[in-house]
Amino acid sequence: MGSRNTRPPRSLVSKTLDVLDAFSPEHPALTLSDISSRSGLPLTTTHRIVKDLTAWGALERNDDGRYHIGLHLWEVAALAPRGLGLREVALPYMEDLYGVTQENVQLAVRENVELVFVERLTGRHAVPVRTRVGGRFALHATGVGLVLLAFAPHDVQEQILASPLESWTEKTIADPEMLRRVLADVRRTGIAVSDRQVTMDAVSVAAPILGADDGVVAALSVVVHADDADPVALAPAVRTAARGISRALGSPSARRRPDSPIPR
Amino acid sequence: MGSRNTRPPRSLVSKTLDVLDAFSPEHPALTLSDISSRSGLPLTTTHRIVKDLTAWGALERNDDGRYHIGLHLWEVAALAPRGLGLREVALPYMEDLYGVTQENVQLAVRENVELVFVERLTGRHAVPVRTRVGGRFALHATGVGLVLLAFAPHDVQEQILASPLESWTEKTIADPEMLRRVLADVRRTGIAVSDRQVTMDAVSVAAPILGADDGVVAALSVVVHADDADPVALAPAVRTAARGISRALGSPSARRRPDSPIPR
Repeated sequence: MGSRNTRPPRSLVSKTLDVLDAFSPEHPALTLSDISSRSGLPLTTTHRIVKDLTAWGALERNDDGRYHIGLHLWEVAALAPRGLGLREVALPYMEDLYGVTQENVQLAVRENVELVFVERLTGRHAVPVRTRVGGRFALHATGVGLVLLAFAPHDVQEQILASPLESWTEKTIADPEMLRRVLADVRRTGIAVSDRQVTMDAVSVAAPILGADDGVVAALSVVVHADDADPVALAPAVRTAARGISRALGSPSARRRPDSPIPR
Repeated sequence: MGSRNTRPPRSLVSKTLDVLDAFSPEHPALTLSDISSRSGLPLTTTHRIVKDLTAWGALERNDDGRYHIGLHLWEVAALAPRGLGLREVALPYMEDLYGVTQENVQLAVRENVELVFVERLTGRHAVPVRTRVGGRFALHATGVGLVLLAFAPHDVQEQILASPLESWTEKTIADPEMLRRVLADVRRTGIAVSDRQVTMDAVSVAAPILGADDGVVAALSVVVHADDADPVALAPAVRTAARGISRALGSPSARRRPDSPIPR
């Protein structure tokens, strides 16, 4: 975490949130002193905050004395419209897509310059993917990421195009000009294909999900084995499911002409 | 919410958590003054806390000025082992069960004297159920609830048996002595059947999920239309899926003799 001594003074509310932020997928269970060092707070302050968080149910204490995120925080967080709210609407359509493909079906939203996976259905024989529900990833590599980036505000696009673009495979698009052309294609076709751009054994095909104001609020993808991937054949299924979710979210354009291109 | 003026003084940490608790499934989007009145906090305090919560991403502001639970809180809450953690392990087995039955498949954990639904898969033709992921329900009516209650600590059972038992249908078990006998049956057979005890059109069949110490950590059910329900036929499928999840969670007994009764 590095030293936080140079930070401006934090309010107790911010300190409380920093305690929650001490937990991560790599560090889901922490001792009091872990929390103290990871949040940059004195042990006494940490103890006081952790006590209140535990009483409320935001943290739970293991038998071994370590703390983890508690179920009550999860209950409250389930009210996030872009989290479980979106997922509840999308799930039946995702199940349809999973039923047809038996491969990974993913739902993601954009959070600033990254994406957050909101849901993933996966089969026992589906290709392994690098995602976790609630996890983050860069926008410029995955199918869902390319969709979310293609329809992101101009300043978000420019910020990403101006930054170094991390490569995961030799196929990852790390050249800003090529990425710009790919994004234009995604806007034109309403489909993004990530061909071995994250791992060499996976191809994903993604489509945008529109909200009540017809803006892009999320992206849906299917991730298949690269060996037998047929993006052209998968695209209509992904678009159909994405359209069903958009309609359920109240998108006016998803109620019109089923074969029209996805509007910008 | 009632008056909170008689409460002892709250710490700022508690006040912050009370702001989060102002949000509910019935009230997912609130104005500042809604939050103030629902949390019993002065408007100035509410404003200060909401500002910090919004900066961190625990709350997000709608275009209409109302606040809702934000995606960053959901990201952190996704680390709760009894929330999405459990769900990630259980999902493939739940999908197997859904594939076989095409009906509602539910996963729940106990939180004090209630249950919390952690996951639900549902088909388009499945019987409507009264549940929501992240939502709570009483323990004495649903299949998952009867399992969680049957294996709950003695004091939790006695507290519920001593309280008035709410009825949802004429079939709900509202008599404590009858409920006690049903719970003994659940412990003996390892299966709970809720026959029209929540709605007159639904039957659920549930089995316990065991954790690494062989204690019951969750319950799994399938909820089907009462008209064509065959609990005897469903029980093996539910037990098989519950056993698979238990094994994935490290339960020693789920690795032994597949046909042994579920241990207490």
